[in-house]
Amino acid sequence: MRSLKTIIAEAEQQKIAIGHFNISDLVGLRAIFEAARDFLPQHKTPVIVGTSEGERDFVGANEAVILVKSLRERFDYPIFINADHTHSLEKIKEAVEAGYDAIIFDGSKLPLEENIAATKEAANYIRTHAPETIIEGELGYIGSSSQILKNIPEGAVFDLAHATKSDEALRFVQETGVDLFSPAVGNLHGMFANAPNPALQIARIQEIKSAVKIPLVLHGGSGVTDSDFVAAIKAGISIIHINTEIRLAWKKGIAEGLAASMNEVAPYKILEPSLRNMKAIITARLALFSGIK
Amino acid sequence: MRSLKTIIAEAEQQKIAIGHFNISDLVGLRAIFEAARDFLPQHKTPVIVGTSEGERDFVGANEAVILVKSLRERFDYPIFINADHTHSLEKIKEAVEAGYDAIIFDGSKLPLEENIAATKEAANYIRTHAPETIIEGELGYIGSSSQILKNIPEGAVFDLAHATKSDEALRFVQETGVDLFSPAVGNLHGMFANAPNPALQIARIQEIKSAVKIPLVLHGGSGVTDSDFVAAIKAGISIIHINTEIRLAWKKGIAEGLAASMNEVAPYKILEPSLRNMKAIITARLALFSGIK
Repeated sequence: MRSLKTIIAEAEQQKIAIGHFNISDLVGLRAIFEAARDFLPQHKTPVIVGTSEGERDFVGANEAVILVKSLRERFDYPIFINADHTHSLEKIKEAVEAGYDAIIFDGSKLPLEENIAATKEAANYIRTHAPETIIEGELGYIGSSSQILKNIPEGAVFDLAHATKSDEALRFVQETGVDLFSPAVGNLHGMFANAPNPALQIARIQEIKSAVKIPLVLHGGSGVTDSDFVAAIKAGISIIHINTEIRLAWKKGIAEGLAASMNEVAPYKILEPSLRNMKAIITARLALFSGIK
Repeated sequence: MRSLKTIIAEAEQQKIAIGHFNISDLVGLRAIFEAARDFLPQHKTPVIVGTSEGERDFVGANEAVILVKSLRERFDYPIFINADHTHSLEKIKEAVEAGYDAIIFDGSKLPLEENIAATKEAANYIRTHAPETIIEGELGYIGSSSQILKNIPEGAVFDLAHATKSDEALRFVQETGVDLFSPAVGNLHGMFANAPNPALQIARIQEIKSAVKIPLVLHGGSGVTDSDFVAAIKAGISIIHINTEIRLAWKKGIAEGLAASMNEVAPYKILEPSLRNMKAIITARLALFSGIK
């Protein structure tokens, strides 16, 4: 089995992106694994499962890790698990102990100097205790909503003047020593109810990539247009996070499942439409990200 | 850690029953584990997690087993996992390979002779390949619904004339060599919408227990009255299965979670009321089964 590091390097070289999808329960994990496995069966499309702090508290950090590692080993399949948006050293330690393949320290709400200091502390801890773990840092705030949005999240920036700057990005990467870098380039967490999300700043992605020369990660992928995704991948994005879209698919599926039979109470029957809906979204995203579409 | 065999023997001796609760997803497992752990924190109340064939296909047999064993090892907690109602040798093999602590072969729809032959074949397979695994056999059909019932399931019997007979129970146990025996004594799968389930045949439970002298299991516990549970445990029931009640609690919780916010899509927020509802039911059942109430 190639390591996650190798797989990300391959994606970078091939100018494709790896899909990162979050889970809150088993049905989500099953949707991700089955969609990836069935997408191009001979190819074993790599996929990353994510759990935010809230998702980790609900699923259990240890449970999430053993489930993904069990699938990886039993099926010899490149499925990995990432501790998404980790905000404290305490939560970094928990993720290291649980055995995550990758960990994101998210200091993006902090001013630059404080973000660098905190990310460096987290990165040093991870390097010392789990040297194989991939470390990601973030510069530029993109909101933190898990809802369907009516307005742009407070503090999140979408104009080029406030997007992550390539010189600051370079300094951040050099001083923290992270393996992956996540900028604010027009992307945001959450998605709008009735409109696509704001356009991505493709030229800025390219500038940042030229400066930092490490793989870039795009958070807040839900609601981004297909053409923006394609351009962003070409410009240097190697991992794309999708969460809100599959949560919405889960929620719509539950409503379908509940409506299908008044008297049915078996969760695995009520959850079938959710599984189907999530798989459809994940499959479409994998196709787009891998340039198959 | 005491083995499941020892724990069942202790329950038998103390005339209490161990709760067996089914899962279709992680939130159910969390509800069971947390309810048991928090019930009498110093006491570590033993609990059994079950997955039927349908639940196993949805959750994954391997995933269910590694999750429960992970909780058992990490928290040094007596939580076990049972392959509920297994109908074929193929599914028995899958459960053995996955590492279930206990397996039920369910031939209860077959005529006596065929049920004995099929249960014996399954029991021999388990003994040979996983000698530590607890084996349960069933005699007497109690339906197989996962729904809220309007009528008694076709073929299920509730009159004393058709309940499991103690002489047939003894022959079944002797010829199959099962560790646990599950009779049809007025119990049924599923529960009625607006009425308690039929009364249990307490005297028959006592007769069967006197005859077979191994721990008895009561399936279809949802909807049974508290006084019937207490009498059944006194008469010789050592494990009680609850499924429909917690499925209903899950379903009602989802409806609450969906109603709480139109724009929320995070499953772990929408599922909170389900977790709370399931824990409340499980806690009440553990109290009743352990004689605390």
